[in-house]
Amino acid sequence: MIKIAVLGFGTVGSGVVEVMHENRVSIAHNAADEIEVKYILARSSHADSPYAHLVIHDFSLIEQDPEIRIVVEVIGGATVAYDYTKRCLLAGKSVVTANKELVATHGQELLAIAKEKNANYLFEASVGGGIPIIRPITQCLAANEIDEIYGILNGTTNYILTEMIQCGTSFDTALRQAQEKGYAELDPTADIDGIDACRKICILADLCFGRHIDPHDVKTRGIRGVDLADVAYARSLGYKIKLLGRALRTGDGHITAYVAPHLIKNSSLLSNVDGVMNGIVVHGNAIGEAMFYGAGAGKRPTASAVVADVIDAAKHLKARKFLGWDEPMPGYVTDADDLVMPWYVRVRASLTAIGTELGNVRFVTRRGAPLDEYAFVTAPMTHRHLHDSLANMEVLSHYRILD
Amino acid sequence: MIKIAVLGFGTVGSGVVEVMHENRVSIAHNAADEIEVKYILARSSHADSPYAHLVIHDFSLIEQDPEIRIVVEVIGGATVAYDYTKRCLLAGKSVVTANKELVATHGQELLAIAKEKNANYLFEASVGGGIPIIRPITQCLAANEIDEIYGILNGTTNYILTEMIQCGTSFDTALRQAQEKGYAELDPTADIDGIDACRKICILADLCFGRHIDPHDVKTRGIRGVDLADVAYARSLGYKIKLLGRALRTGDGHITAYVAPHLIKNSSLLSNVDGVMNGIVVHGNAIGEAMFYGAGAGKRPTASAVVADVIDAAKHLKARKFLGWDEPMPGYVTDADDLVMPWYVRVRASLTAIGTELGNVRFVTRRGAPLDEYAFVTAPMTHRHLHDSLANMEVLSHYRILD
Repeated sequence: MIKIAVLGFGTVGSGVVEVMHENRVSIAHNAADEIEVKYILARSSHADSPYAHLVIHDFSLIEQDPEIRIVVEVIGGATVAYDYTKRCLLAGKSVVTANKELVATHGQELLAIAKEKNANYLFEASVGGGIPIIRPITQCLAANEIDEIYGILNGTTNYILTEMIQCGTSFDTALRQAQEKGYAELDPTADIDGIDACRKICILADLCFGRHIDPHDVKTRGIRGVDLADVAYARSLGYKIKLLGRALRTGDGHITAYVAPHLIKNSSLLSNVDGVMNGIVVHGNAIGEAMFYGAGAGKRPTASAVVADVIDAAKHLKARKFLGWDEPMPGYVTDADDLVMPWYVRVRASLTAIGTELGNVRFVTRRGAPLDEYAFVTAPMTHRHLHDSLANMEVLSHYRILD
Repeated sequence: MIKIAVLGFGTVGSGVVEVMHENRVSIAHNAADEIEVKYILARSSHADSPYAHLVIHDFSLIEQDPEIRIVVEVIGGATVAYDYTKRCLLAGKSVVTANKELVATHGQELLAIAKEKNANYLFEASVGGGIPIIRPITQCLAANEIDEIYGILNGTTNYILTEMIQCGTSFDTALRQAQEKGYAELDPTADIDGIDACRKICILADLCFGRHIDPHDVKTRGIRGVDLADVAYARSLGYKIKLLGRALRTGDGHITAYVAPHLIKNSSLLSNVDGVMNGIVVHGNAIGEAMFYGAGAGKRPTASAVVADVIDAAKHLKARKFLGWDEPMPGYVTDADDLVMPWYVRVRASLTAIGTELGNVRFVTRRGAPLDEYAFVTAPMTHRHLHDSLANMEVLSHYRILD
């Protein structure tokens, strides 16, 4: 019998306790031992919960209980969660988390402490919710040199874009719908502005390329400003607008990572990942392209990943999982603005100006466009080059095109 | 330094040796030790190969060399490969394979020997080529009760169907093209008739549901007989025809598994898995739906999975992976003919006969159909029920519909 503690009893925490109970027989089979939740750390008493008798308010009880070998941290944020995680690891307990903010910012340090204490710090649920992605990258693709990873990493923004594309809903209405359905927070900034996707692409890049990337070094642009006019032009081109996090090698020992809306081809599998679902594409030099798809958030899908990590931690109580990456290095992350890609641009300008500044572009039309509005696809160029070329035009929108 | 032997030096074997060499630095990093190919067992000398100096012809050299801790079996088939695998495991060596036939038929026995000898028998490459699927099912989804798994498991048939759907190519021409491109064998029976997909769905079902399924208990129907007329009717309905292997729980302690062409919705992600690619969908009670996509065959993708298993075996030389399933049990596998599903049917019959036998059906049309040809979608029913209802009609085709 292995005893665990759950820190935090919100949506994910209650999902974890629920799945642990519901699937206890198969979990015991898979872990080759029974696993029992001994404590739930929460601020309120949760008197109505069937697990109220497990709720405690004093973290040190968990920290000091030698019977607790595995701790699930689903508090979120990088303050209290950071402190508790560190103390658990220092006490030699393995920690399992869904906390992308904490892993993206302090993952390298926490993994180093785990290693020193012969414990494990596991975070499958921090990227892609329930989708198996951390383990596939680190284990199943271990024979590959990975040169690129990208995907739809945020369900809220994908829901909004899908509504805009499929139903012609405006951004504001789609955001309100997402909030009503519980897919978006009252303050949706972290989702809408790409911050959540940024943390996730950092974790993926850390693992794929082996060195820590500071989220602050990752140019991040969300979906505010994506307009139905852009959706319509993209459709004429045979593309959809999706928010992608992307990381790739840009030369020996260098990588770049960024978050931005992209036009992606209708014929690509990723463009058919709709609603709150996530999809992650990996390119390796042996496997070629692989994609992982599933629910990127939600109570039970996230619990699925957390509990899988608990089982893994239970199976490795005396062993260590090989997980970790090197410390940051100046000059390692190159500027995403230097990536050479084609661009979709919508401007208010004259044909002459466009021709003069950008040469041959591919124009695209939509019904009901104002007479002075032009949308077109440029030749591949850096963002700097594009920016200079557009300096004298009124730019309504510009997005990268993934070909 | 860990020394390994590779049994078989065909497409996959040479891919394994190539990837092992090319990515040796990152492989050593991931395995926390260098891994070196010491022997390649082959019938001919492969004098032109850069690895000719490693080629030997006597298996017992490998069997008796205590330095060899891991053996890669990529001979294929269930005769010589079975003998060698057994002897390696009995000698306490871990074995890694891409051999679906061997795993599907003798997996349970070989895993039991591996367990007894504290060695590992790993077979990620046996299903889905390079796609990570075995490890995700057994580890990442370990917190779930899996109730269903299905997918496009064979690249050859998916290539043929994709050509028929996208280019209007006939079955015979598409098969010839597949042979010319090297996607299909000269004798394409194992692919075309669903035998390959059958072995793979058996392995997936063994792992997902925990008990051995004999491939002979799995009703298997391939894509011979799929006609362009059916492709056209499916299109009118908003569906595509895809060959699926499928296994699901049919009640407490019972499962069913089968291979058959299905009509699947254009809006489903799986219907967009085209050409030689594979896609596998898993339903779990916590994660909901997840999908895994990638190259299901080919030299380097398959090598990617084999070498990942070699790395895993290297990391677990003194430990065991929890992999295995129970022995077969009479009555465990129920007849797929008893599954209740809607059907697509194409007949030469009178409207009256159709109405009398099948009641309200949904008719579908295509351009240029003969006057006495009718195609329709039935209410959900068993295959037996369908069969009886169609007894007095000339049935041109009938396929399951996955809704």
